[in-house]
Order: sequence, then structure tokens, then C-alpha cells
Amino acid sequence: MARIVMKFGGTSMAGIERIRSVAERVRREVDDGNQVAVVVSAMAGETDRLIQFCREAASLYDPREYDVVVASGEQVTSGLLAIMLQSMGVAARSWMGWQLPIMTSDAHSTARISGIDAKAIDTAISGGEVAVIPGFQGMSAGGRLATLGRGGSDTSAVAVAAAMKADRCDIYTDVDGVYTTDPRIVPRARKLSRVTYEEMLELASVGAKVLQTRSVGLAMKKGVRVRVLSSFDDGRDEGGHRGTLIVGDEEIGESDMEEQLITGIAHDKNEAKVTLTSVPDKPGAVASIFTPLAAAEINVDMIVQNFARDTGNTDVTFTVPAADLARSIDVLEREKPSIGFRELSHDTNVCKISVVGVGMRSHAGVAATMFQTLADRGINILAIATSEIKISVLIEEDYTELAVRVLHTAYGLDADEEAA
Amino acid sequence: MARIVMKFGGTSMAGIERIRSVAERVRREVDDGNQVAVVVSAMAGETDRLIQFCREAASLYDPREYDVVVASGEQVTSGLLAIMLQSMGVAARSWMGWQLPIMTSDAHSTARISGIDAKAIDTAISGGEVAVIPGFQGMSAGGRLATLGRGGSDTSAVAVAAAMKADRCDIYTDVDGVYTTDPRIVPRARKLSRVTYEEMLELASVGAKVLQTRSVGLAMKKGVRVRVLSSFDDGRDEGGHRGTLIVGDEEIGESDMEEQLITGIAHDKNEAKVTLTSVPDKPGAVASIFTPLAAAEINVDMIVQNFARDTGNTDVTFTVPAADLARSIDVLEREKPSIGFRELSHDTNVCKISVVGVGMRSHAGVAATMFQTLADRGINILAIATSEIKISVLIEEDYTELAVRVLHTAYGLDADEEAA
Repeated sequence: MARIVMKFGGTSMAGIERIRSVAERVRREVDDGNQVAVVVSAMAGETDRLIQFCREAASLYDPREYDVVVASGEQVTSGLLAIMLQSMGVAARSWMGWQLPIMTSDAHSTARISGIDAKAIDTAISGGEVAVIPGFQGMSAGGRLATLGRGGSDTSAVAVAAAMKADRCDIYTDVDGVYTTDPRIVPRARKLSRVTYEEMLELASVGAKVLQTRSVGLAMKKGVRVRVLSSFDDGRDEGGHRGTLIVGDEEIGESDMEEQLITGIAHDKNEAKVTLTSVPDKPGAVASIFTPLAAAEINVDMIVQNFARDTGNTDVTFTVPAADLARSIDVLEREKPSIGFRELSHDTNVCKISVVGVGMRSHAGVAATMFQTLADRGINILAIATSEIKISVLIEEDYTELAVRVLHTAYGLDADEEAA
Repeated sequence: MARIVMKFGGTSMAGIERIRSVAERVRREVDDGNQVAVVVSAMAGETDRLIQFCREAASLYDPREYDVVVASGEQVTSGLLAIMLQSMGVAARSWMGWQLPIMTSDAHSTARISGIDAKAIDTAISGGEVAVIPGFQGMSAGGRLATLGRGGSDTSAVAVAAAMKADRCDIYTDVDGVYTTDPRIVPRARKLSRVTYEEMLELASVGAKVLQTRSVGLAMKKGVRVRVLSSFDDGRDEGGHRGTLIVGDEEIGESDMEEQLITGIAHDKNEAKVTLTSVPDKPGAVASIFTPLAAAEINVDMIVQNFARDTGNTDVTFTVPAADLARSIDVLEREKPSIGFRELSHDTNVCKISVVGVGMRSHAGVAATMFQTLADRGINILAIATSEIKISVLIEEDYTELAVRVLHTAYGLDADEEAA
């Protein structure tokens, strides 16, 4: 017997027949003797429909009222799943966020979960009843409905799993796990049976959108074992595993880590490169660039500074999310007098390629392999950033697929056969 | 300055543009210096969509979960109206039933309001903020979402008006008031500027579906002045009145009552006639018919007993709602041995015609006029029922329009001109 949280996304909840399949999956876990809580998303498309209503109602809307409107989508699916489970003879009831409660911060529409009172869930599931909980929402300190922002249902599921001390949090989605890289680019990409929280965080933050980054961070902090698996496919890998388990380093074990140098290769085309030329090379010059960007809540990622000591000037290159490029340019042009650069150039035809793996900690030469492999193919590196378990390079967007493919081979990640 | 509850039905809330018109109506009341609470229905069609989901999920569903699903419709419109009001510069916020709370009985899906804590509304509207409240719902004693059944938003509005001691409860709908009869049958039907609670109850119970009967009963009990008026038409009648005001006898005044003998003529085609022949004429015989029907929660309306003293038997004729006819026949056939009737015949091609008016109390001859008028046209009366302010007759359905028209003329209700 185990305590399990099962989370189903919008595609899995899209319509009565899919909710019936979800209910059947839940019943199987109950029949296996497990105590189960289910966290559900709204039907695919429903949250967009509700957001659209708010936008049509007013261009600037009160996020507290927006939350009232959009929280209704998960309310509907939680009630429907409870009805469906009962019709299959499985004891079940829905628990709204305000009924438990799931407490959140007051940052309506992007609230953070501050605490969950799991007593009611605990009593229910201990008595054999399935607890169905609408994801993405809770109640703010002021007693109002609050939502967590897009993808927040993953975070809800992990938070519920932590509060009820679940043995595992299964995130059902439309892919069957986390891959070494995007299988659309590399047909020989392999599904990973295990990955560490940190690797998952790095992969998620560079474009492998299987799980919301926040939910992985919370899982790491609370030590919740998360599994990502498919709602639509029951297949198991050669090792007999379904999906990908996301766990702490300690569960992976030394031997695994040593044999697996690199876990995966991610790419992210949603970056834009900005270059400021002839910035005065004096104390505070770099701060004069990045302080106003930070004030505008623009996340600067990779930074390269080309010193040109003879002129006393320097070129500064960095990346920002492509969606924030226009705002970034506005901010920088406004600050031009105080920064003192000569020209601003920008480029969105770039891609960030990252190799990720905890094995990197105990192995030298990972970066050298990367640079050499790309150089062999004539791929120019525009910027480099590194962390303890990740090396990222910025390249021209046209080389994305080539770079991912050659690196996947260079690090020995290719499977024997193509993925289905 | 007055305290007003404004209630808008599903047709008035159907889509963003209509909600914008609603917000404009609300703003006008606020601009006039009134304190306003608004009770809203779901968008037209939305509740049906949600009910359909529940039915597809299971043929027999837990009404508590059904309530979770269907309550979402009004949650959406209350948030949207608050957003719209704010965008017009009107201070507003939504209050969910569980936030006030609006307490209900535990009869989920057909719950009754047991009490409303109006402190929060009182504070809000006293401070000039519009309180927007989803109709049709509240919270049961067990802390769960509960809905009031179809048309429950009218009842929500009256209950909120009573709790906040409102001067008036304006029910905005798709007709511009209560008419002396159905204008589709009698083009010279007149809009009534005032009608008493009792008259409205009788009219509503016999098919004039402007307001839910429950809401009128509650308004009478709590002394809430209710006005029915159109969301789409700002026209006033000759007396300068908008809509129809529903009030107590004391507000109508003696003179009004004397000049107005009959207030309106209603018809109801949703009845079915059942006749049991040769029922033994002994004590308890009639009870043996109606006790099992009552146990099956079938409302029996008109009852006629034809004594045939020579045989010791009697024929019993009565009406039930047409929707309950099949169940009624089942119940009666099952009880046939104990009732001892010979044959059961039934007929749905009948119509109940009612003349309603508080003036009836002080005038004789109202019934005689009715019977004579119908007899003059050769319309046969199948059954008769009377109350203090209503006389109803059952006739063949084919004569419905003729009967309504001749009675409308006979009681002097025809307007000088045809209604628009």
C-alpha cells in the first residue's frame, strides 16, 4: 500500500470520455490497495476561454476577479471526476481549495502556495475515499479565490503530495516521460527512467516543457518523488519502468551517476541576443546596464563582455527572453545617456543549447567535448554559460537541430533503436 | 438614496457585450446615489451545458458533486461583472456564497436558503462598493457548495434583499413586466404596474413564468418589494412606471382593489387528467388513491368526485403535472387491489385556465361570469378548483386561446390598444 497523488493535465481531462479513462486509471490504483488523491486541470482550452472573457471584459482587470473566473475550470472537472469515480463504485469526493484549505499568497493570478491543511484529505484517503482536488488554485489570506498562474496544477499536485506525505506524485501528461533530448529532432533519443531534481530543473528551464519549473523546485525542497508518465500510453521501457521518476541524487546512486555522464540535451529558441557596443570600461558600467533591466523584471541570462583594453571601451552581449526584447530595447534606449554605449544591436535568430547532467560534477572534459564537437561542424559559439550541472552555449538558430544531434551522439546518448 | 438589489437572468448575462449593458444599468443606479448589490445568473445555456456534463458522466450522480459543477456558471459571470464595473470606474467586488456565507439546507441540487450573513455586503455597499453575488447557490451546513435548483437565482436575489433590508429587489428579465394574460394569445393584454404577492403566486403557479414561485413566496414572507422589468427595454407605461411592482395588499390600497376585480388570466397546459372509474364509495377510498401519490411526491391539483349513490361506487377525476403522468399511472396500477377501481383513463389534451385577483374577495359573481362566458362559447368544464383569489377550470386544450380571449374581454381587461 502506498499513498499516491495522481495529477492529470488539461489534455487528459478534455471531455467526458477522457475523464472516464482518468477515472479508470484512478480505480486501478485504488484496486491495488493504494490511498489516492487526484489533482486535476481544467478541460484543455477551457482556461483560455475564461481568460479570453476577462480580456474582453477589460484590458486591465482586477486579478482577484480574474481568479474567480478562471478558477471555475478546475472546479468543473473535479466535480465531474468525483461523479465518474462514484459511478464506478469508487468512493470519492471533491475538495475545493477553500474547503481544505490550500492557503496561498495574495499575489492573485500568480499566487504561491503558503500551506496546505491536509487533515481532511488524510482522513478521507485513510478511509478509502479518493480525494479529488482542483489544481491551480487555493485561497488567499484574505479568504478569496487565488490561482497559481499557468501550469500551476503541477505545483498543486506536488504541494498536496508533500502535505499528505505521499510516497509518490504521478504527473500524467501527453508525453511518456523525460527524454535525453527532443525526439522530434533526434529519433534515437532515449526516455530516461530516472533523473535528479536538479537535472530536471535545468532541463525545464531550457525548454524541455514537461513539468513546470516551480513544481520541480518545490518537489526538490520537500523531497517529493515525482513521476512523469503518459495518460494515453501504458508502455514500459526495457527496464520495466513507466515514465520518468524525478528524485534526489541519493536515489540515483553512485554507480548510475558514474556511468551516466550527461543526462540530456535541451534547446531553447525563445532567447534574444542583445549587444551594446563601446560601453565605457569603468567601474559601475555593467551595473548601469543590468540594474534598470532587473527593475523592469526582465531576466538576463547569458552575459559576455569583450574587453578591448586599448580603447577603454568594451562590447557587452547578453540574452533576454525573446518576449521581453522590445521592452528591453525601450529600457536600454532610455538609459543610453547613463550607460553610454554607442550602438544597440539585437538578434532573435539564436538558440541556446544546453548539456545537463549531475555526472558533470565528477568529470572533467565535458565542456571541451562540447566545444570540440560543435567546432568540428563549423558551428560558431556566440556565448557560453555554465552551472555546476549544465553547460549552455548560444548558437545561430539555423544550426539548432544539427548541434543537438551531434552532441547527442558525442555524449553517447543515442539509443540502439529509434523511439516509437 | 435607496438600497437596491438588481438581479439579471441568463439572457441578460449571455456574453461580454450583454454583461457590459448590465454593468451600465448598475452604474446608473450607483450614479443616482443608490447602494447596490447585484445577483447574477450564469450565461444562458451554460447551466444546461454543465448539467449535460454531469448526465454524461453518470446516469445517477451525487448531487453534492453536481452542485460543484453547476455552481461554476454563476461564479464566472459574477467575476466578469465585477471586472466590467471596475473598468467603468465603479468600485465592485464579487462575493461567493461561501464567502458571505449564504447558508443553505443539505438538500443538494434543490437546497433552500436557511440564512444569509449580510455583514460583509452591508459594509461594502455602505462604503459605495457594488457587491456582485452569484445567484442560485450557497453553502450547506457541511461546508459544501449547494445549488437551489432551476430558477433559484430569483430566490437568491429576494433572500439577499431581505438580509440587507433593501428598499427594492429589481428582477431584470426578457419581458417588461407581468401582463393581464399572455400577449401572444391576447394582443390587447395590459402590463400591470402593480400586483400583490398572492396574485403573483397564483399567476406563477398556473403558468405565467415570469418569476420563480419560491422567490415570490419568500418575498411575501419577508415583505421584500420586488419589481420585474426588462433588461433590454427602457420603456415606461402610461402611468410612468417601468415593469411591474410586486407588493403587499396594503400598498395597493382599497380604491385600486375595488376598481380592479380581476388581475389576470393564466393558462397552464402542463397538466394531465386522470380518471378512476367505479371506486368503492367507502370511508378511506379517496385516501387510498392520494396517499400513495403523495408518497411518490406527485402533486395532485384539481379533484372531482362523481358520486353515484345507487351503485355504491364513484368516479374520481384529478389532475397531475403532465411530466408525472407515467409515474402516477405506475403508482395507481400497483395500488389497484387496495384502491379497487375498475378502469384508469387519462388525457393530456387539457388546459387549466385561471382567473386571479384579490378583488375577488369582496365581489360575488366572479365565478358565475366565468362559467357563463365559457358556456356561451360551448366550452365544456371538466373540473373546477377555487381559492380565495383564484378560480381555475380544466377545459379541452383546443379551446385554450378562445377561452383566454373571451375571459379577458369579459372581465374588462382589454387595453385600448394592442401591446407592442
